[in-house]
Amino acid sequence: MIYQRVALIGLGLIASSMALAMREKGLAGEIVGTARSAETREVAIEIGLCDHVYQTAAEAVAGADLVVLATPLGVMGAIAEEIAPLLAPGATVTDVGSVKRSVIDAVAGHLPDGVHFIPGHPLAGTEHSGPRSGFPTLFRNRWCILVPPDGTDPAAVDRLTDLWRGLGANVDLMEPDHHDLVLAVTSHAPHLIAYTMVGVADDLRRVTDSEVIKYSAAGFRDFTRIAASDPTMWRDVFLTNRDATLEILGRFTEELFSLQRAIRTGDGAHLHEYFTRTRAIRRGIIEAGQDTEAPDFGRAILAGKEGAE
Amino acid sequence: MIYQRVALIGLGLIASSMALAMREKGLAGEIVGTARSAETREVAIEIGLCDHVYQTAAEAVAGADLVVLATPLGVMGAIAEEIAPLLAPGATVTDVGSVKRSVIDAVAGHLPDGVHFIPGHPLAGTEHSGPRSGFPTLFRNRWCILVPPDGTDPAAVDRLTDLWRGLGANVDLMEPDHHDLVLAVTSHAPHLIAYTMVGVADDLRRVTDSEVIKYSAAGFRDFTRIAASDPTMWRDVFLTNRDATLEILGRFTEELFSLQRAIRTGDGAHLHEYFTRTRAIRRGIIEAGQDTEAPDFGRAILAGKEGAE
Repeated sequence: MIYQRVALIGLGLIASSMALAMREKGLAGEIVGTARSAETREVAIEIGLCDHVYQTAAEAVAGADLVVLATPLGVMGAIAEEIAPLLAPGATVTDVGSVKRSVIDAVAGHLPDGVHFIPGHPLAGTEHSGPRSGFPTLFRNRWCILVPPDGTDPAAVDRLTDLWRGLGANVDLMEPDHHDLVLAVTSHAPHLIAYTMVGVADDLRRVTDSEVIKYSAAGFRDFTRIAASDPTMWRDVFLTNRDATLEILGRFTEELFSLQRAIRTGDGAHLHEYFTRTRAIRRGIIEAGQDTEAPDFGRAILAGKEGAE
Repeated sequence: MIYQRVALIGLGLIASSMALAMREKGLAGEIVGTARSAETREVAIEIGLCDHVYQTAAEAVAGADLVVLATPLGVMGAIAEEIAPLLAPGATVTDVGSVKRSVIDAVAGHLPDGVHFIPGHPLAGTEHSGPRSGFPTLFRNRWCILVPPDGTDPAAVDRLTDLWRGLGANVDLMEPDHHDLVLAVTSHAPHLIAYTMVGVADDLRRVTDSEVIKYSAAGFRDFTRIAASDPTMWRDVFLTNRDATLEILGRFTEELFSLQRAIRTGDGAHLHEYFTRTRAIRRGIIEAGQDTEAPDFGRAILAGKEGAE
C-alpha cells in the first residue's frame, strides 16, 4: 500500500482507470471520489468504483494523503481554492491534466505550506469518457510525466512515482514548459488537425454524410476516433496550451503549403522523398513498444476473426 | 469459379490479398501474376502466391479472362499499352487504383474492342506493402467501388461484382469524378495531412526524435500509421487526383485557420461546439460497421492482454 486514502476529484476515464488499477494492485488503503455531476456520482456508486463517493471535493479530500485532480483543466484552480483549507499536512496534491504550466499557475498559489504539489500527466487515454470508460490496464507501458516544482520533497516525488509504476506506467520528470511543447507536437496539434478534418468532411454537402461514413475505412476513420474525444477536456487543452499549439500549427501549415505546391507543380520526387522519411518514424514507435506492428492497429485481424461472410 | 484465369499485374498488398482470398474461396481456376521488381517476383514464388509468376505483364495476360492492374497509378498507362495486343477477346480488364478518372484517361484508349474495361477501387488496405503483406480477409465488409464507363456490358460488370462479393466486399457503382471527390475527402486529404504532421514532428529539433516516439501514444502514433503507407503509391495518388485533393485541402486550411483564431481569441464556446459535432460522426461510422467500438481501436484491450507487468 502506497497511500492510505486517495481522493479522486473528477471520475472520468483517467480517475476511474486509476481507481480500478489501485484496487487491483492494492496500492491504496481507501479510495474515495467526487464529481461535479450528480449523474457521474450516481454511476460511480452504482458500479462500486470507490469506497465512498462524496458530494463535494472538500469532503473528499479530508484526511487524504493523496489528492488527484482529474477534472478538465479549466476548473482545477477553483477546486484547489475550495479544497486548500481541508488538505491534511503532508498530503500530496497531483493532477492528470494534459497541460502543465497552466495547472501550476492556477493551483500552486492556493495550496498551503506543508502540502506537496506534484503536477503530473499520464499519456494514456481512449476516445471514450466518463466513469464507465475506465479499465485497469490503461496505464500499462504508457508514460507518466511528473513536473515537480523546484524544491519539492524528493520523498514525495518518489512515493508518487511508485504509485504510477504500480499502475503499470513508466515515469519521467520534466520541466513544465518543455512538457507543454512536446505534447503540442505529439498530442495537441494532432488532435486539432483531426477535429478539423472531420469537421470539413461533415461540412461538405456534395459528399453526403452517408458516403463519408460508408467509405471511411480508406483513412478517414482513424481521424474520427481522435475527433471523438471529450469536447470539454480538449477545449481546455487548447485554451491553456495556446502558444505552443499555435506555434506547432504554424509549422504544420507551412509544411502543408509546401506539399500542396509539390502536388500542384507535379513534383513527384519531393513527395516521394517526404513520404519515405515519415515511414521510418513509424518503425521507431513500434520498436519503442508504443504501438502494435499488427496491420491497421490489429483491426484487420479482428475483422477477419469477427467478420460475417 | 468465376474466372478461369486471373492475371495479377503487380503483386503488392492488394493483389496478394486477392490471390489468397480467390484461392481460399475457389473463385479462380488459375491465378497468375507478374511484378516489375525481380525481388517481388522471387518472394511471390517462394511463398507460393500464384500458380505461375511471369517475367512480363504481356506473358501473364495471355489467355486470362480477368486482368487486374494492381500497380501504382503512374505506370498503368504503359502497362495497358504493353498488354493490349495480347488480351483475349471477351476478357475483362480492371484495376485497383485509388483514383479513377486518371486511370480511365491512361488506360481506356489502349484497349482493343471486345475487351471489357471496368475500373475499380477496393477501399481496403493497411500501412504494410509488398507480396508478404496480403491476407485473405482484407476485403471483408469493406466497400469496392466500380466505375464502368457508359455502355459497358452489364454481364461483365455483374461477373466482376460477383468476384468482389466472393472476396467479402460490398460493391457500389459510381461516376469516376464523384469517386475521386469522395476519396479526396475520406482518404487522400487525410493521408496528406498525416504525412505533413509526421514530417513536422520529425523536423522539430527542440523536440528530439526519441521524445516524439516515446510520447507518441498521446495521439500522434495514429498519424504515423497512415504516414507509413507506401510512398510510391501515394505520390501517384496525389499527382493523379490533384484538383480534388487541393480543393479539399483548401477547405481544410480555411477551417483550421478558423479554429486557430478561436484558440487565439479564447473562444471556448466555438471550440466546444465544433468538438461536440465531430464526436457524432464517429458514432455513425461504428453504427455502419466500418470500425470497432473498442476503445483505441482495440489496442487498449490488446495491450492489457499482451502487456508485461
